[in-house]
Amino acid sequence: MSGILVLQSDFGLSDGAVSAMYGVALAVDRSLSLFDLTHDIPPFQIWDASYRLLQTMPYWPEETVFVSVVDPGVGSDRKSVVVKTSTNHYVVTPDNGTLTHLYQHIGIVEARIIDEEKNRLPHSGASHTFHGRDIYAYTGARLASGIITFYEVGPITPIEAIIQLPMKDAYCEEKIITGFIDILDVRYGNIWTNISRDLFQKLLPEYGGSLEITILNGAEEIYHSTILFGRSFADAPIGSPILYVNSIDHLAIAINQDSFAKQYEIGTGANWKVIIKK
Amino acid sequence: MSGILVLQSDFGLSDGAVSAMYGVALAVDRSLSLFDLTHDIPPFQIWDASYRLLQTMPYWPEETVFVSVVDPGVGSDRKSVVVKTSTNHYVVTPDNGTLTHLYQHIGIVEARIIDEEKNRLPHSGASHTFHGRDIYAYTGARLASGIITFYEVGPITPIEAIIQLPMKDAYCEEKIITGFIDILDVRYGNIWTNISRDLFQKLLPEYGGSLEITILNGAEEIYHSTILFGRSFADAPIGSPILYVNSIDHLAIAINQDSFAKQYEIGTGANWKVIIKK
Amino acid sequence: MSGILVLQSDFGLSDGAVSAMYGVALAVDRSLSLFDLTHDIPPFQIWDASYRLLQTMPYWPEETVFVSVVDPGVGSDRKSVVVKTSTNHYVVTPDNGTLTHLYQHIGIVEARIIDEEKNRLPHSGASHTFHGRDIYAYTGARLASGIITFYEVGPITPIEAIIQLPMKDAYCEEKIITGFIDILDVRYGNIWTNISRDLFQKLLPEYGGSLEITILNGAEEIYHSTILFGRSFADAPIGSPILYVNSIDHLAIAINQDSFAKQYEIGTGANWKVIIKK
Repeated sequence: MSGILVLQSDFGLSDGAVSAMYGVALAVDRSLSLFDLTHDIPPFQIWDASYRLLQTMPYWPEETVFVSVVDPGVGSDRKSVVVKTSTNHYVVTPDNGTLTHLYQHIGIVEARIIDEEKNRLPHSGASHTFHGRDIYAYTGARLASGIITFYEVGPITPIEAIIQLPMKDAYCEEKIITGFIDILDVRYGNIWTNISRDLFQKLLPEYGGSLEITILNGAEEIYHSTILFGRSFADAPIGSPILYVNSIDHLAIAINQDSFAKQYEIGTGANWKVIIKK
Repeated sequence: MSGILVLQSDFGLSDGAVSAMYGVALAVDRSLSLFDLTHDIPPFQIWDASYRLLQTMPYWPEETVFVSVVDPGVGSDRKSVVVKTSTNHYVVTPDNGTLTHLYQHIGIVEARIIDEEKNRLPHSGASHTFHGRDIYAYTGARLASGIITFYEVGPITPIEAIIQLPMKDAYCEEKIITGFIDILDVRYGNIWTNISRDLFQKLLPEYGGSLEITILNGAEEIYHSTILFGRSFADAPIGSPILYVNSIDHLAIAINQDSFAKQYEIGTGANWKVIIKK
Repeated sequence: MSGILVLQSDFGLSDGAVSAMYGVALAVDRSLSLFDLTHDIPPFQIWDASYRLLQTMPYWPEETVFVSVVDPGVGSDRKSVVVKTSTNHYVVTPDNGTLTHLYQHIGIVEARIIDEEKNRLPHSGASHTFHGRDIYAYTGARLASGIITFYEVGPITPIEAIIQLPMKDAYCEEKIITGFIDILDVRYGNIWTNISRDLFQKLLPEYGGSLEITILNGAEEIYHSTILFGRSFADAPIGSPILYVNSIDHLAIAINQDSFAKQYEIGTGANWKVIIKK
C-alpha cells in the first residue's frame, strides 16, 4: 500500500512552488499518493495553518503524513520538526506554533528535530529560502514512503518544548458562556467559536429557542442581539442570523445566505470574545 | 482497477472542507482515484453546478462517480440521491436541481434516495451541516470502490420526481433563432448560449460571414450589432467581437483577448435572450 | 510503473475546462498519475507559462510529460509540438514561445510536430477552440502512458525553428551588474531577476553587507537605494527590503512581510532593468 502525503502552505497555486514540491515528492517515490489540505492559508498566518490541521487531520487514514509550510521565519534559527499525533498521523513543519491546535486538542506523542544534514534534497544546499521543497516535502515524502523511519528523521525533542501560540479556553460561569472566535469560514462569512457542543449544553439550549449573543473586540461591543438556535442555516429565514453547531462540533454564527463576518467586520483570535446567555 | 471519484462543490479551496472530504474518501478505500471538477461554483448557484456536470462528465471514463455538493438547503428536508446516467456515470448530490442539465441533455436511467441510516460516516450523527463530508463523499467513495452497489444506496425513486430548474430550449422561427445565455466562461468573459450547432445551421451560416445579434435582459436591449462568424477567437482582430461554436458545440460570443461579459454586463439564465438573424 | 502527466494552463479552476482535460487523460489510461503545474497563468501570458516550466520541471521525475496550454492563437496556423528536453522530460504545447526558457536554460534535444490526423480525441473534429482537451491532453496522455512513442507524435522539426520570445541575458561590466526582471513572486510581491548567483559573485558580496540597487522601466528610474544582502527575508527587519538568492538560484528583492512589487508598481520583461553596484 503506497503512502499518503498531504501538503499545506501559504504559497497559493498561482506559481510553481507547490508543483515543485510535488515533483520532489514523486522523485522520492513515484507510487506516493499526493494531496492538498489547502495552499491558501493567508500569508504568514501560523494560527490558521494550525487550525486547518486540526479541522481535517482526523478524517484522513492513519499514518498519513502532513507537510505544513507557513514559515515567516525561514532562514532564521527556528527548528524544523516532525511529530507523531495520538491519532497516528505525522506532521512535518517548522516549529513555529503550527502545532498549537493539534497539541491542545488531539495530543502529540513524540517529536523529532529534522537532521538537515541527512534529510535535505541533494544539491539544494545553496538555497536558503525554499525549505518547503528542499527539506519539508523531501522529508515528508521519504517518511510517507517508508524510505526513512520516524526514528531516522533526527533526534528526539521534548514535547513540551514545541512552540505554542497563546490560546484561551471557553468557559461557563453562572449560566453565561464566554468563548473566543477561532476562525472565519471565509467563503461564507460564518463565525466559528471555540465553544464546544458539550460546554454549550450547560445552558440547556433547545432547537428553535433563542439566545442572547454579545461579540466584543477587546472591550468594544461589536454585536448584541438574540439569535435563533437551529440545526442548520435553513432553519433561519434568508438574511437572518442563526446559531448552530458546526461540522467540527463547535458553536458557530451565520446569516442564512449572507456573510455575518463582513456585515459586522469580525476578526479572529483571543481578543475576539463571544458571550452567550440563555 | 481502482474506482474514480470526482468532487464538485461551492466550498472553495481556502479552508479544510474539501480536504476533509478527500480524507473521508481515502479512509473508505485508499486505492480510490480522487479528482476535482471544480470547487469554485459561486455559493448556492445550483444552476452552475448542474451546468458543469454536463460540460465535463462525457469526457470521464464510464462508472466514474461524481459527488456534487451545492446545497443551500442543507438541514432542510431536501432529499439526497444517487443517479445513474445513460452514459453509465453516477452522481451523488442533494436533489435540488443539480441534475437538471444531465436530465435534459444526457438522460438519467435510475435514481435512488440515499438511506442515511446505512450510508453515513460513522460517529458523524451530531453534525447537521456538513453532509458533503458525512454523507455525499462517504457514499460516493463506497459506491466508487465497490463496497456498496448502486442498489444498496437506498430505495429507488421515480426519475420524474427529480427536482428540475426551469429551462427554456432555443428555437428557430422564420429564419430567426432565439436562445438563452446558459453560462459565462468566467475567466475570459465569453457568453455561452444554449443554441446548438445543429440549430444554428438552419441559418446556413458561413465562416467569415456576419450575423445580426441582439441580446435582451427581459425586455431591455443590452446589445445589438453584427458579428463575424469564425472558427475561433483568432479569426477576429484583437478587441473585436466574434461568434463561434464553443467546446461543447454551442454558439458563443467573445471579444478576442477581452471580456464581452464585463463590457456589456451580461448575466445568465432564462431571462437573458440572444436573438440571431443572418 | 504508470506514467506521470502534469498540466499547465491559463484556464483557471473555476469552470470545467481542466476537469474535462483530466477526464480525457484518464479515458486514455486510467492508471496515469495526473498533476497540475498551475492553471493560474495570467490569460494569454506565454512568457509566464515558459517561465513556470523552467521553474518546476527539473524537480519532476524523468519521462514526466508536461502539457502547457496558454494559447492566444488557438485556431490560427500556429503549430502544435512535442519536445524532449536534455533532462529527459517531454512538453506538449502550442509552438508560440512557451518553450523559450527551457530552450535557453535546459536545452531541447528533439522536436516533433503533432500530426493532428492521428493524435486528436475521436469525434472532437467539429470544435476548433479547445485544443487543450482535444489535442494536447489527449496526446500527452497517450505519450505518458506509452500508447504512442515520441516518434509517433508526428514528423520531426528543426529545434532552431521553435518559436522564441525575446530575452536578454544579464551581464557584468566594470563591477556593475545589469539584469532584468524575469517574473514576480505574485503572492508575496517579490522581484525575481535573471541575475544568477554565479554572476552576482563577481561583485564579491558578503551576507550582511549592502549593495546599491537601481530599477529602471525603460529610461525611467523607479527605485534607487542601498539594500541589505541576506540569506533570507528573516535577515531584514519586518517592513525592510532585502536582496537574496531565491529558490532557483537567482537574485531577488523582497520586503520582509510586505510586497515590494506593489509598493513600487514593478512589472516584468526585458524592459525592466535592475542595476547592482557594490
